Amino acid sequence: MNAAPDRNEIVEYFRSLQNGICKGLEHADGGALFKEELWQRPEGGGGRTRVISNGGVIEKGGVNFSAVSGPCPEFLKKENGIPVSEKADFFASGVSLVIHPRNPFVPIIHMNVRYLETAYSNTNQGWFGGGIDLTPHYINEADAAFFHKHLKQVCDKHNPDYYPKFKKWADDYFYIPHRGETRGVGGIFFDRLSDADGNGMQPLFEFVRNIGDSFLPVYIFLIEKNRNKKFTESHKRWQLLRRGRYVEFNLVYDRGTKFGLLTSGRTESILMSLPPHAGWEYNIIPEPGSEEEKTLKLLKKDINWIGC
Amino acid sequence: MNAAPDRNEIVEYFRSLQNGICKGLEHADGGALFKEELWQRPEGGGGRTRVISNGGVIEKGGVNFSAVSGPCPEFLKKENGIPVSEKADFFASGVSLVIHPRNPFVPIIHMNVRYLETAYSNTNQGWFGGGIDLTPHYINEADAAFFHKHLKQVCDKHNPDYYPKFKKWADDYFYIPHRGETRGVGGIFFDRLSDADGNGMQPLFEFVRNIGDSFLPVYIFLIEKNRNKKFTESHKRWQLLRRGRYVEFNLVYDRGTKFGLLTSGRTESILMSLPPHAGWEYNIIPEPGSEEEKTLKLLKKDINWIGC
Repeated sequence: MNAAPDRNEIVEYFRSLQNGICKGLEHADGGALFKEELWQRPEGGGGRTRVISNGGVIEKGGVNFSAVSGPCPEFLKKENGIPVSEKADFFASGVSLVIHPRNPFVPIIHMNVRYLETAYSNTNQGWFGGGIDLTPHYINEADAAFFHKHLKQVCDKHNPDYYPKFKKWADDYFYIPHRGETRGVGGIFFDRLSDADGNGMQPLFEFVRNIGDSFLPVYIFLIEKNRNKKFTESHKRWQLLRRGRYVEFNLVYDRGTKFGLLTSGRTESILMSLPPHAGWEYNIIPEPGSEEEKTLKLLKKDINWIGC
Repeated sequence: MNAAPDRNEIVEYFRSLQNGICKGLEHADGGALFKEELWQRPEGGGGRTRVISNGGVIEKGGVNFSAVSGPCPEFLKKENGIPVSEKADFFASGVSLVIHPRNPFVPIIHMNVRYLETAYSNTNQGWFGGGIDLTPHYINEADAAFFHKHLKQVCDKHNPDYYPKFKKWADDYFYIPHRGETRGVGGIFFDRLSDADGNGMQPLFEFVRNIGDSFLPVYIFLIEKNRNKKFTESHKRWQLLRRGRYVEFNLVYDRGTKFGLLTSGRTESILMSLPPHAGWEYNIIPEPGSEEEKTLKLLKKDINWIGC
């Protein structure tokens, strides 16, 4: 039985994923609680923006759920090869999160899982997309290996091609060309997963669920392992510079951010991904042999973290 | 006598403008000195990046000079209607500066003056461009009026149409659509000033020189007027948020930044415009009647500051 999942089932999963992640993060944080803002989209649907700030572990974070529908915006038509003159509808739902921890030794994390449908003149298309990537201020190879091993396990359960393909996709996507740096140690990125092999959408939905469900155990492990590490003013200064790179990636290259800013009007929900504070100093070159230099050297594509 | 200025004359002016501005700012700052980095472009020309940080008044600033030439990059061909298949050369020179003061009551300022030439199959085109705009963290209407009056005076000496036209151009250019806010109180912006009325390039060069030369007296007045104003943690927090908007404008919309990042390889020189620190908090809405709310209300296009 590989019946297609219906929209309600998908939306219910994303809604419960947001609930579970927020509860889990609040518990791990031990200090702050998420604040919720409900919003509606005039053209159809809406969402739940949830933000947390000044916590014990999390300095700023957001976990957003949305399920929106209506006439297909122009950029979505273009992206999906639908003639602009064509009347078309779309439906989109997903969860998107970014967590900026206070301690420079706890990595920033981002995850997005989503489902998109377009419909026009008897053509219906639906697909899943998403990604999860880790951005340590200081790269710890063991943490990176742990993160990638976990993602590979989830991928391998579904398709042995997934991990190598989606890992490379993440390396290419989470890249800052003007710096010649990856955003962090990568992870996986995938888009337009649809029923190519005739097995229906259900196995793809299961894959996306497995990715979504892997977030909490993976990130909480990384929090617990690093949350009590001592840090100095110099580590915080480096954290600000690395957060500056995060801002550069999100504002210059990230497709979701760009499209959101240009079309949605939900600026505050979209920019919840930006750090609480970031810094820019002219031409900082870390000292040879320092942890900062080591991190810069590891911000490269095509590193086999699991083999490290 | 309206002979066209030659390139050397223009380059010499921009070089001396950078020198004068750096000396004047160091004197006003009283604490820090500019550090210079010379750079060369493999394809031709180079520049002098000068940055200042942690001064008495200036927390971070950059005043860059460049004069570059060589084969016309593709984006420049596109911008100037030159077929991509056509062999073309370009020459560009200018001064670009951004100053981020420490005291939230001293405004951020930006100025750019430049000359660009393209040459292909017996077609030579040359034009001036530039702009100067003021971004107060807290808008003071008297300061904004002073700034605009000064710019209007300079413009009116050359052409009564300049100020209204270039003021509107700045309002439209220095605008953050996803926030529905102007970057600050605007100023003037102009581009592609070329010999349209048969008077040659010399009068346009004089206009650009007058704008360039107006920078120091105008900005130093604003520094001296505001540098000793008392401020609190709450004012600093607001400054960080306003600097966040500055980052958003520069990374998402500013053409110079975008083209520079995509083509030049001089990332550090280009991003010297970013503030030393910036902040993002979720959905900050200033209290009714506060100075912060007043500032937000004044971040609009088409305000007649001189008439205030």
